[in-house]
Amino acid sequence: MNGEPIVILLAEDENGHAELVRRSLEGAKVANTLIRVADGQEALDYLYRKNGFSDPAKSPWPGIIMLDLRMPRVDGLTVLKSIKADPGLMRIPVVILTTSEAEKDIAEAYDCHANSYLVKPMDFAKFTELMQTLDFYWLAWNKNPL
Amino acid sequence: MNGEPIVILLAEDENGHAELVRRSLEGAKVANTLIRVADGQEALDYLYRKNGFSDPAKSPWPGIIMLDLRMPRVDGLTVLKSIKADPGLMRIPVVILTTSEAEKDIAEAYDCHANSYLVKPMDFAKFTELMQTLDFYWLAWNKNPL
Repeated sequence: MNGEPIVILLAEDENGHAELVRRSLEGAKVANTLIRVADGQEALDYLYRKNGFSDPAKSPWPGIIMLDLRMPRVDGLTVLKSIKADPGLMRIPVVILTTSEAEKDIAEAYDCHANSYLVKPMDFAKFTELMQTLDFYWLAWNKNPL
Repeated sequence: MNGEPIVILLAEDENGHAELVRRSLEGAKVANTLIRVADGQEALDYLYRKNGFSDPAKSPWPGIIMLDLRMPRVDGLTVLKSIKADPGLMRIPVVILTTSEAEKDIAEAYDCHANSYLVKPMDFAKFTELMQTLDFYWLAWNKNPL
């Protein structure tokens, strides 16, 4: 397992879903810091350290990105493409976290090199189980690039 | 969660490690079919249905690939590059499973669009825990492309 607590950047426009993620991760086995941005533009600003995200102490580098697909201003697929086309960002694992089970969305996400694609369960107990499995898998076991 | 049992293609040259994976997955929560090939060339033969792997009934399509890096004939990185450059294969999640913790290997794997990078634990209990987390995450939760 890895030793350091890892920063999770969550790009999610719906407050209710972001809150579910936060609560689900509270009891997780692995220490983590959850940072939430509210749309795709804010996710890009965060990653490029623009518009209020310039201080690395306040905006630490994410070890993993959880990305919603349907978001205002800039959608998740556009953010994913930007990340995976940028040599400075492409190594960060990006997990799509969406309500869409559409084959087209799943295929497009993998075509744009999403690392993983998860569908948000409607049920809180299942949501928590998913978040804790995600946390354990990506933060405890997966080797993130430095 | 997904409903169907999923085929795991394991490319691993060391019999001992392949056996560890097989035993670790036996008690997994999610039904799975483990198919093992012994090097990178065999992995490519399997995916391109060549040299004894032409029958889809005997060589079912993998939902996930677990790929060792150091293997004879064709190494894991070459297999990874082939998979991720082929529109017919690139959507299959590829999890690197290796003994190497070298930063260079981790970075190269992500640069070639590995979906995840795992280091084999030396301890059997930990190996089993990893395999069962992997199984649960990728087979129960992750949405694989059709």
